[in-house]
Amino acid sequence: MPRNILFVMFDQLRWDYLSCYGHPHLHTPNIDRLAGRGVRFSRAYVQSPICGPSRMSTYTGRYVHSHGASWNGIPLKVGETTMGDHLRAVGMGCFLVGKTHMRADAEGMRRLGLDPDGIIGARVAECGFDVFERDDGMVAVGPDGPLEDPEAHLYSQYLRERGYAGDNPWHDHANSGVDAAGNVLSGWFMRNAAEAANIEEADSETPYLTRRAIAFIEQAEAPWLCHLSYIKPHWPYIVPAPYHAMYGPETIKPVVRTQDEFDTAHPVLKAFMTSPVGRAFSRDEVREAVIPAYMGLIKQCDDQIGVLLDWLEQTGRMNDTMIVLTSDHGDFLGDHWMGEKTFFHDTSVKVPLIVYDPSPEADATRGTVCDELVESIDLLPTFLEIAGGDPGSLRHVIEGRSLMPLVRGTASEPHRDQVICEYDFAATPIAERLGLGVREAMIFMVADKRYKLIHCEGGFRPLLFDLENDPDELRDLGGSEDHGPVIAAMYERLFAWTRRVSQRTTRSEAQLKEMRTAIRRRGVVLGAYDENDLPLDLTVHYRGRTAAIRKPAG
Amino acid sequence: MPRNILFVMFDQLRWDYLSCYGHPHLHTPNIDRLAGRGVRFSRAYVQSPICGPSRMSTYTGRYVHSHGASWNGIPLKVGETTMGDHLRAVGMGCFLVGKTHMRADAEGMRRLGLDPDGIIGARVAECGFDVFERDDGMVAVGPDGPLEDPEAHLYSQYLRERGYAGDNPWHDHANSGVDAAGNVLSGWFMRNAAEAANIEEADSETPYLTRRAIAFIEQAEAPWLCHLSYIKPHWPYIVPAPYHAMYGPETIKPVVRTQDEFDTAHPVLKAFMTSPVGRAFSRDEVREAVIPAYMGLIKQCDDQIGVLLDWLEQTGRMNDTMIVLTSDHGDFLGDHWMGEKTFFHDTSVKVPLIVYDPSPEADATRGTVCDELVESIDLLPTFLEIAGGDPGSLRHVIEGRSLMPLVRGTASEPHRDQVICEYDFAATPIAERLGLGVREAMIFMVADKRYKLIHCEGGFRPLLFDLENDPDELRDLGGSEDHGPVIAAMYERLFAWTRRVSQRTTRSEAQLKEMRTAIRRRGVVLGAYDENDLPLDLTVHYRGRTAAIRKPAG
Repeated sequence: MPRNILFVMFDQLRWDYLSCYGHPHLHTPNIDRLAGRGVRFSRAYVQSPICGPSRMSTYTGRYVHSHGASWNGIPLKVGETTMGDHLRAVGMGCFLVGKTHMRADAEGMRRLGLDPDGIIGARVAECGFDVFERDDGMVAVGPDGPLEDPEAHLYSQYLRERGYAGDNPWHDHANSGVDAAGNVLSGWFMRNAAEAANIEEADSETPYLTRRAIAFIEQAEAPWLCHLSYIKPHWPYIVPAPYHAMYGPETIKPVVRTQDEFDTAHPVLKAFMTSPVGRAFSRDEVREAVIPAYMGLIKQCDDQIGVLLDWLEQTGRMNDTMIVLTSDHGDFLGDHWMGEKTFFHDTSVKVPLIVYDPSPEADATRGTVCDELVESIDLLPTFLEIAGGDPGSLRHVIEGRSLMPLVRGTASEPHRDQVICEYDFAATPIAERLGLGVREAMIFMVADKRYKLIHCEGGFRPLLFDLENDPDELRDLGGSEDHGPVIAAMYERLFAWTRRVSQRTTRSEAQLKEMRTAIRRRGVVLGAYDENDLPLDLTVHYRGRTAAIRKPAG
Repeated sequence: MPRNILFVMFDQLRWDYLSCYGHPHLHTPNIDRLAGRGVRFSRAYVQSPICGPSRMSTYTGRYVHSHGASWNGIPLKVGETTMGDHLRAVGMGCFLVGKTHMRADAEGMRRLGLDPDGIIGARVAECGFDVFERDDGMVAVGPDGPLEDPEAHLYSQYLRERGYAGDNPWHDHANSGVDAAGNVLSGWFMRNAAEAANIEEADSETPYLTRRAIAFIEQAEAPWLCHLSYIKPHWPYIVPAPYHAMYGPETIKPVVRTQDEFDTAHPVLKAFMTSPVGRAFSRDEVREAVIPAYMGLIKQCDDQIGVLLDWLEQTGRMNDTMIVLTSDHGDFLGDHWMGEKTFFHDTSVKVPLIVYDPSPEADATRGTVCDELVESIDLLPTFLEIAGGDPGSLRHVIEGRSLMPLVRGTASEPHRDQVICEYDFAATPIAERLGLGVREAMIFMVADKRYKLIHCEGGFRPLLFDLENDPDELRDLGGSEDHGPVIAAMYERLFAWTRRVSQRTTRSEAQLKEMRTAIRRRGVVLGAYDENDLPLDLTVHYRGRTAAIRKPAG
C-alpha cells in the first residue's frame, strides 16, 4: 500500500481539455505522464455541477441529497463526518492546501458549543481538514462589500510581500491585465481574457499553490493525505505570460450546439441558456476571448503538475504516494448555449480522473483507461482503503465505493450501474425567472452508459439523452413517446435511489445485524404466553423468583 | 396564547381504546373531559409504528427518513435539532418527565468533543430535553445482562424506598403478580396478565409519573413545556388492583381479522403475522388474557389524567396551559393476526390526539372533532407557535405544520393531503426470515383519506387498502389490476415525498431567497463581457483602477 495520498483537485477543469482525454490542441504532457503511470477514468461523474456541493460530496463520500449542502454558501451541517474524520480514525492525517468552498455551520457550532478555535471546532469548520493553507481564490468585492474577509487571504499577503501594491492585489495583479497607462483591465470582464495577467508567472496562483504543497510535504509526517486543491482554471479567465498567448481562436474546439437544441429546449434548460451567463457564452466574441485564456490556465496547471511530479520523483515520494487528479466539475464554454457549469451535460458533470498507485499490485493497469461509471463520492472510500481502513464497514455513512478494484484490475463486476448528479438552484435568480419556490428549484440526473434522464421538480416533463447515439447530447428525447419505457425505467432507478437509506448513520450494518437478537438476550421477551414459548435461557431472570406479598392499601 | 404546554404522551395507546374514540366498554371520562374542552383529531398518524423512531420524529418535527433514528436503539445523530432547541431559542423551557426512548449518539458526541455531563452534552444526549425525570420503564434482564443500567432507574429506587424488596422491584412488583406462596408471576408471560400487579396502586408507574409531573410543575418557572411521557399501557401487560379485575373477555372488542386475509397475505405482511408475536396474538387465550389488562392499564391512565386535570384546575394552570394528549403508536392486540405495532394498519399507526387550548380564540372548536389528516411531526411546530416562535421560518428544518389553524378553526385549506409512515425492520429477525439485507428491510406507507399504499423494499408488490370501502383494512388490493391507476398515483406521491428537500437545514428559505442576488452584490459578477453587460454598481470595485505594471521575470 502507498503510505501517503496526494489528492489534486482542479477547479472547473473540463474533462476533455487535456490531451490524454483527446483535446486536439491543448497538450498536457505532465498530466498525460501521470495517466500513463496510472488508470484514467473515462466516465467519472461529480455529484453536483457546482463547486460547493460537488466538493462536500467528495469530502463526505455522500450524495448531496444526503449531506444537504446543496449550493455554494450553504454550510455543511455540523455532525456530518468527513474525509478527515474517517482518515484520522485509522491514523492518517488529512491536510488542506487550497480550496474547499466549505462554509462552516456557525449556527450549529454555536448550538453545540463548539469553539472554532479549538482543534475539533476548527476541523468541523474546515470540512474535516487540518488547514496548511486555505485559499478559495476569490477576493471579490461589490457594492455590499467583500465576499470574504480579504485580510484573511494569505495569498494576498504573499502578493503584498512580493511588492504587488493596492488594496486588492489578487484582483489588480493575479486576475487582471494592465494597459500601458497603468489602467487595470479587470479579469472579471471577459473581453480582457486575452490580456496577460499583470503578475510574474511564478507569483500567480497555480505556481504559488504548487510551492505550498511542496512546503507541506517537506514537513509532513507520514502517513498523510494532502488535498492540493487548485483554484484554476476557474474564472476569472485570465492568465499570466507566456500562457496568455499560447492559444488563439484557431485552437478552439468547434462549439457544440444547434439552433434546434435552443429553439426546442425544455423550459428549465432554456432558462439556463438564457441566463446572463448563457447569453454571454452564446456570443462568439466571448468564447474566442475566454477559451484561449482557459486553455492557457490549464497549460499552466499542467506545467505545475510537471514541477510537482519531478519533485516527487526526486524526493522518492512517487514510490510511496498515491496520486489522484480530478476536478470538481466542468465548464460549458458556450456549448449547448451555456456558460459556467450548472446543468447536467457531460461537458459539466463528467470530470477527468486519474489514479496513480505506486504499488506493484497496480502495475497491470498502468496507462490503461477504465470505462466504468464512477462517482466522486468513490474517492473517500478509496483513500480510506489506502489508509488501512475498511470502507465496507462504513456503508451506513459513506455512500461511495472504493475504486481500488478498478485501480488494481481485480474488479469482477461493474462498479456501478448508474451515476447520480443533483443541482439545487433555489438560491439563484433562475428559480425566480421560472417562478419556482425554494423547494422546487431542484433537478436530478440519473445516467448509465446508454441514457441520461434529467428530472426537474416543479411539474415539468423530464429530459432524456441517448448517450450512445447522441454523445453530444443535442437531442432531448424527454418528450418522445417512443422512449416512454426507457424514461419509466430511468425514473424507477431515480425513485429507488431517493428511497435509499442515507441518514441511519449511527449504527453500522454489522451492528444492525447484531441487534436482531440482542434485545431478547437483554430480557425484552415479546410474545411469550408462558415460559415454554421461548428458549428457557432468555427468561432466566423472570422465573423462579419470590417476593413479599403486597396488598393494596385501604 | 397559553403560557405553558403540558405534552402528555402515552405509550402504545391504541386510538380506539378510549370512550371518546368510540370504545364501547372502556370508559375514559377524564380523557373525554379533555376532549370536550379541546379538539379531538380523528386522523392523527405517527411517523413510525414503534417507540423510538416515532418519538424521534415527534421530538424533531422530521420524518424518520430525515433524522435516521429508524429503530429502537439507533441513536438520534448529534446535530439534529430538537423540540428543546427550538423552544429554548424562543424562551420556553422544555422538560422531560418520563420516557423518550432516546439513545444518545455517543460516538458522534465523542467525535465533537461533547461532554455528556455538560449542559449542552446532556441535552444532546437526552434528545433536547432538560430531564426532570427520565424513565423508559423497562428494567429488563436477560442472559447477556440488563438492557439498561438498573441502578440509574429512579423509579426502582423509589420502590426500594417504599419497601419493595429484591434486585428488581420494577419486575417483581410493578410488573408481576404473585401467588399465595410468594412466587412471582412475571408480567413478561402473558398468561399472568389477569393477575393483579403485586404493588399498591399508588406506587405503580402511572400514578408515580403523574406525581412527578405535578412536582415538576409546582417548581417550574413559566413558560415551560412539560413532556409527561407515560410508560403505559405498553407491555408488560399487567396492572395493579382494582384495575386488574375491571374488564373481562366479555368486554373485549371482536377481533378484526379474516382467514382470507391470512391465507392471501403479502409475503412481508405474512412474515409479521407469523412472527412469534403474531402467532401468540393469534391465539384467543392470549387476547383474552392481555386485552383486559391492557384496558385496565388505560383505565388507570384515565384516572390519573383525572387527578392531573383536577390539580391543574385547582392551581389555575388550566387557564394558562395548553394540554396535548397523544400516543406514540397503537397495538394490534391480535387484529390482522398480529401483536405489537410494527405494521401500517390504522390499528397501529393512527393515534389518539387531543389538543386543549385555554385561549378564547379556541372557544369555537371546543368539543369538536377534526377529521383532517395530521402527523405527529405537526406537534413541534404547534408548540413552537404557542411559545411565540415562527414555525414558517423553520421549514428548512421542521417538516411538520402547526395545528393551530385547526385548533382555532381558522384553517382555510386542508392541512395535509397525505400522511407518511415508515418502518425499518433491518434490526429484527423478520428481515432475516425474509432474506432481506439491512438496506432492504424497509417499508413505507403513504395514505390519504381514501387509500393507503404500502411499499416494501426488496422487490415485492405493494399493498393497497381502500379506507373508505374497507375501513378495517382486510382486503389488500395491491395485486388488483383494476387499481393500477390508484397504485401509480399513490406511488407518485411517495416518490415526490422521497425527493423532498430534507437535509438543507443550514439555510432558511428566506436566506436562500436573499442569496439569489447577494453574491453579485459581493462582487461575483458572472457573464460580463464588458462593464456595460451589468448594472454599473455591481462592478464599481473593478473599474477605474490603476496598478504598477509588472513584467514577467526573465
